[in-house]
Amino acid sequence: MIQKLMEKIQQTGAPIVVGLDPMLGYIPGHITSKAFEEKGETLEGAAEAVWQYNKEIVDAVWDLIPAVKPQIAMYEQFGLPGLAAFKKTVDYCKEKGLVVIGDVKRGDIGSTSLAYAAGHLGKVAVGSKTYYPFNEDFVTVNPYFGIDGVKPFLDVCREENKGIFLLVKTSNPSSGEFQDQLIEGRPLYELVGEKVAEWADTCMEGQYSNVGAVVGATYPEMGKILRKIMPKCFILVPGYGAQGGKAEDLVHYFNEDGMGAIVNSSRGIIAAYKQEKYQKFGPENFAQASRAAVEDMIADINGALGRR
Amino acid sequence: MIQKLMEKIQQTGAPIVVGLDPMLGYIPGHITSKAFEEKGETLEGAAEAVWQYNKEIVDAVWDLIPAVKPQIAMYEQFGLPGLAAFKKTVDYCKEKGLVVIGDVKRGDIGSTSLAYAAGHLGKVAVGSKTYYPFNEDFVTVNPYFGIDGVKPFLDVCREENKGIFLLVKTSNPSSGEFQDQLIEGRPLYELVGEKVAEWADTCMEGQYSNVGAVVGATYPEMGKILRKIMPKCFILVPGYGAQGGKAEDLVHYFNEDGMGAIVNSSRGIIAAYKQEKYQKFGPENFAQASRAAVEDMIADINGALGRR
Repeated sequence: MIQKLMEKIQQTGAPIVVGLDPMLGYIPGHITSKAFEEKGETLEGAAEAVWQYNKEIVDAVWDLIPAVKPQIAMYEQFGLPGLAAFKKTVDYCKEKGLVVIGDVKRGDIGSTSLAYAAGHLGKVAVGSKTYYPFNEDFVTVNPYFGIDGVKPFLDVCREENKGIFLLVKTSNPSSGEFQDQLIEGRPLYELVGEKVAEWADTCMEGQYSNVGAVVGATYPEMGKILRKIMPKCFILVPGYGAQGGKAEDLVHYFNEDGMGAIVNSSRGIIAAYKQEKYQKFGPENFAQASRAAVEDMIADINGALGRR
Repeated sequence: MIQKLMEKIQQTGAPIVVGLDPMLGYIPGHITSKAFEEKGETLEGAAEAVWQYNKEIVDAVWDLIPAVKPQIAMYEQFGLPGLAAFKKTVDYCKEKGLVVIGDVKRGDIGSTSLAYAAGHLGKVAVGSKTYYPFNEDFVTVNPYFGIDGVKPFLDVCREENKGIFLLVKTSNPSSGEFQDQLIEGRPLYELVGEKVAEWADTCMEGQYSNVGAVVGATYPEMGKILRKIMPKCFILVPGYGAQGGKAEDLVHYFNEDGMGAIVNSSRGIIAAYKQEKYQKFGPENFAQASRAAVEDMIADINGALGRR
């Protein structure tokens, strides 16, 4: 699956991913009103608004980008109707040819971990039939359990040609509370990075692995080191834009071949029409504002890559 | 919510929780056949089998136990129909007066973490209305992000009188890969335990906190130390029975007052009819086998507690 992602990055010239993390507060009033008229001020109504919002954004940007990253929490908060909107979004993006990174941050042990891996990336058997319940292309995985928790995902990645991004260094201010703790003089995230590199070796597809890592844009010095520790891993980089990560800081997340990283922006793209810069589009044309924000983000990152 | 859990433990005399982690392979043929006849060999059919299986077990054991712990991965693997069965199970157990611990092991940062907290423990606003989408009583939470990831859960716990159990030391063989790493001579899980104790202080309800910890039964020496580090926390203890944890090892997870721990068994209870010991019940009476296994587990743990 990493090969498909790389092809899409080359095709679009855009090492970026759009985070589909809809909050009701982002969605323009004309969309929520219509959804609530049809389905009421209910979880179904919220889910419908989320879906219509996503669809319009995807329709406006799909040809510019290689991948999307729906954050399942934003759907799960609306219960079963919300999760149905998540699935609809995944399916629609795949129809559009986009690589779908399910930002689910699941993690557990043994058979439980396998259940997550099967449910999100692989298939389950029901009697004589098999089904791919959510069928994302990649998912994010929490490594706190060690290899017991990761192995079922690795197995499914190999069987199904899918991929994962393991959390190594997250973008939030308190990520250091545990991740930066020193172990024999080196921070925990480096140790996690080394393990990820080891696991990545067992899931190679070409020069890169189907096992990647999440490293926040907000910690560029750590990104530089982790880039070297995990040479064959793609790094999924959250924290660009709204969280403070700058394009200049991100060049070190890429390898010399210009590959090896994919930078996420969520709010900065999907709620672009709320920024002064894109205000002229107005809420009615929010999706066109998202398109302009995608174009600006691509130029920003490619510009920084060109200057390095 | 911890007070409600304590009352239920006192009422039943049973510091245990039944893990509702159904695998299709556990479910007797007569139940799956009926479900597949009605709904086909589909995800809906699998979900129906899971639900009927759960219901019969809950009906057979609810009066003996304070709480259940459905593992959401086992439902999520069957996609949206599976998650509907999860919700049905949560609702049904709550109707029966059981405390419901959603074993969801979610964890993320900021607004994303809040979305999980709202969706599973709290409420979401849709226009002028509010809804409790999953409405578990407790959930398990992954601490890898530090306080940024945990705070939204703490806030919802205080607002809604709900609770969480943070992963501190998990029961699996490779849990030491990261959790046991030494930081200034002390393992990471102790540092996590100290933070959990700190966070617990902000969510007290009586003598105990609504913030508890997960510490595997398979590491009793570590459990002893963690018990002291987190005196006001309930410890949710997985790994009894099938994973190898013995009642004698578990007495140190309890405080002097006989409170402070709740021991989970999943497979050992819900698939009891498959063990030689309970074979006489046969697949038709699997729920009665579960009841016998619950009675034996209570006697086993209370026996060990009595002997200490």
